[in-house]
Amino acid sequence: MSLETPRTHYTSQVDIEQIGDDKVTVCGWVHEVRDLGGICFVVVRDREGRAQITLVKKKIDKEIFDAARKLVRESIVAVTGTAKAEGKAPNGYEIIPESIVVLNEAESPLPMDTTGKVDAELDTRLDSRFMDLRRERTTAIFKIRHEVLRAVRDFLTKDGFIETCSPKVVATATEGGTSLFPITYFDREAFLNQSPQLFKQILMSGGLDKVFEIGPIFRAEEHDTRRHLNEATSIDIEASFLDHFDVMEILENMVAYVYEQVIENEAASLKALDIELSVPKTPFMKVPYGQAIDIVNAESEETVEWGGDLGTVAEHTIGEHVFKETGESHYFITDWPTEIKPFYAMPYEDNPLISKSFDMMHRTMELSSGAQRIHLHDMLKARIESQGLNSDGFDFYLRAFKYGMPPHSGWGIGCERLVMTMLGVENIRDTVLFPRDRKRLSP
Amino acid sequence: MSLETPRTHYTSQVDIEQIGDDKVTVCGWVHEVRDLGGICFVVVRDREGRAQITLVKKKIDKEIFDAARKLVRESIVAVTGTAKAEGKAPNGYEIIPESIVVLNEAESPLPMDTTGKVDAELDTRLDSRFMDLRRERTTAIFKIRHEVLRAVRDFLTKDGFIETCSPKVVATATEGGTSLFPITYFDREAFLNQSPQLFKQILMSGGLDKVFEIGPIFRAEEHDTRRHLNEATSIDIEASFLDHFDVMEILENMVAYVYEQVIENEAASLKALDIELSVPKTPFMKVPYGQAIDIVNAESEETVEWGGDLGTVAEHTIGEHVFKETGESHYFITDWPTEIKPFYAMPYEDNPLISKSFDMMHRTMELSSGAQRIHLHDMLKARIESQGLNSDGFDFYLRAFKYGMPPHSGWGIGCERLVMTMLGVENIRDTVLFPRDRKRLSP
Repeated sequence: MSLETPRTHYTSQVDIEQIGDDKVTVCGWVHEVRDLGGICFVVVRDREGRAQITLVKKKIDKEIFDAARKLVRESIVAVTGTAKAEGKAPNGYEIIPESIVVLNEAESPLPMDTTGKVDAELDTRLDSRFMDLRRERTTAIFKIRHEVLRAVRDFLTKDGFIETCSPKVVATATEGGTSLFPITYFDREAFLNQSPQLFKQILMSGGLDKVFEIGPIFRAEEHDTRRHLNEATSIDIEASFLDHFDVMEILENMVAYVYEQVIENEAASLKALDIELSVPKTPFMKVPYGQAIDIVNAESEETVEWGGDLGTVAEHTIGEHVFKETGESHYFITDWPTEIKPFYAMPYEDNPLISKSFDMMHRTMELSSGAQRIHLHDMLKARIESQGLNSDGFDFYLRAFKYGMPPHSGWGIGCERLVMTMLGVENIRDTVLFPRDRKRLSP
Repeated sequence: MSLETPRTHYTSQVDIEQIGDDKVTVCGWVHEVRDLGGICFVVVRDREGRAQITLVKKKIDKEIFDAARKLVRESIVAVTGTAKAEGKAPNGYEIIPESIVVLNEAESPLPMDTTGKVDAELDTRLDSRFMDLRRERTTAIFKIRHEVLRAVRDFLTKDGFIETCSPKVVATATEGGTSLFPITYFDREAFLNQSPQLFKQILMSGGLDKVFEIGPIFRAEEHDTRRHLNEATSIDIEASFLDHFDVMEILENMVAYVYEQVIENEAASLKALDIELSVPKTPFMKVPYGQAIDIVNAESEETVEWGGDLGTVAEHTIGEHVFKETGESHYFITDWPTEIKPFYAMPYEDNPLISKSFDMMHRTMELSSGAQRIHLHDMLKARIESQGLNSDGFDFYLRAFKYGMPPHSGWGIGCERLVMTMLGVENIRDTVLFPRDRKRLSP
């Protein structure tokens, strides 16, 4: 039992040879109606492509012909008929209809053009995301995003990682920052979690050994840039008995695998976006922080002293330097000053000013941060306090370090930035269905 | 480059024949030290099992022997040595150590027993989740949870569904309920989303055709029961051009597939939990609401009039009835009164008092709700208003129905309840690493 006119095929699935004289039903949106008087073409669009419906006035029932001519663009129809080869039509076939059922008529005028002929502003597109998604380019991005996350899970699961889930409602700020959204949790104040960091570390003490989480993170930062979001999707791993080099290797191999899988499984989407993707070569180049600032100081207008953070200009300068040297967009900056990394980054034993931390960079922006973590309770507590934080608020976390915490390392990578850099998308909002930023809370 | 003593094998991976005289290194927790004077056994535990380290006083370096005897339980060690067959030891081998490196010594006394010999209260276990996870039974639940979600994604992806992500921070209540957590979103009030419902429907208008989302949902309900959470993981689908019967079929087949996959891939975890799982038979029995209340009225002390909701007693009565009749735990209750279902449930054309809605039940509790949705703008707007809601707040949603919304259907199923009923877990908090309820906000 199904809808009265159940779909038999997506438009891309109609195979003339296989189907023969059997009836097909395609369902979708009226993309275009071309009424040439004696002949009328209706193009029906679904997620997978388009089908041409051909109605020759002399050969077809008058009622159907007249109805077809009057179809309103973007209405929902179910078309049943016989498919015939037609080289000039999309997918090489046309349908001679027996019936065209209008399942939901669209109003007009439409709030946005969907043919791709007119380029709408980002805000217009986001306001009418339901229309924007009808453009092939937009759908392609979200098909690829699906494939990226599928490939990530596949890679990590095969490598023995267990998918876990940390709470989004928390009592304490992860890194003590001020950029938290407060919640009224019954009669208490709570916050939206900025990162699964503390929880995934607790799981190392629990013995889960290798875990990953893919979920929302929330940052109440006020920037309004093309590469920040206030709600984003973070891909996080944490692994016991591995150091920062081990997890960098996991990261670069994962990124390469994701590119491979997208190339293999999303060829049509890449074509729709007019992108030729190539798999990043592993291992990624490792640039120690000290060397990175030398590059910045030599090759840009900016000066960074040892201990300073790297801004946008610095990142671009290093990115271009690496690209010239290797021809690759991805690289690591390693061995950051301990003071500018979070409290949980492990300092080197022989030089505690430097930490076993890294950022994984794309030529155009930072993608990921990671480190070997401090697994020793007293050192960790001291580091929390030395950053001016009250260690009492971290009691639920510190306790896990007292009774058997293995050495461990991990990283987090932003899903949106991974997709954005892969596809050369200009604005990060284009990689999220319903983005949230300083100004946007709807749809 | 790695930690000084990198792990070569999980304890379950040591295969004597394959390894021969090669050195092995296992890393983990000191589970037990049995000092018999002339011989000392140390049991090391990792995620995958246990290994026996055997130290014979006369045959081994005095320093190692003395250090082994003094190992503190639950400390982290890396043991390197030679593996030999030993039928009485876990996994059939013992390790004769060359070195035992203590990577992080545990404090004592421990906050909780991890041997499984003493049964701790749920609250104690949740307070010290990092200790609780060291019990084989607890880890088994979370390995199975991972496999459940892996199998769900696998099933839906193979069926052409695209994984999508809706915002958790929203401006409007999904179903107009009062059970929302308010957030301060910069200078505005916002809410944590109760359900991806409205967003996944908008995606149908966008043409994504078949989507699923697995993510957190937040409900500010005050109940304190063993089967409610304030933050839970919901598995949601929405599909165009399908009716409620079609998506019930997807749901029952998905549940059966998940059981199959858990049986196939998590045999060791099921064994640890002492569970023999069998795959539910499909199709699940369908009990129309009218018949369901007849069963309740005939077979329980309770009376439900037509139009009334089904409480716990009613659910149990129907569950037992179905189980007696079919020997199966899963079934559907279909054709609910329109008035007690959310505004988006589609009424039957020939009897609008009844809706094309369903709940999927386990003998012990409700698992899932779904329906064919209203896809017609005017009907939907009228239904929103007839439920006393202000349709202005739904403008971002209603707009998507004006310009080409296909007929569509979908459902949501709680991940935790799926795991809970599968494993016969008594309290839903046992299926969440860090549960959130009325009283619990930490760890």
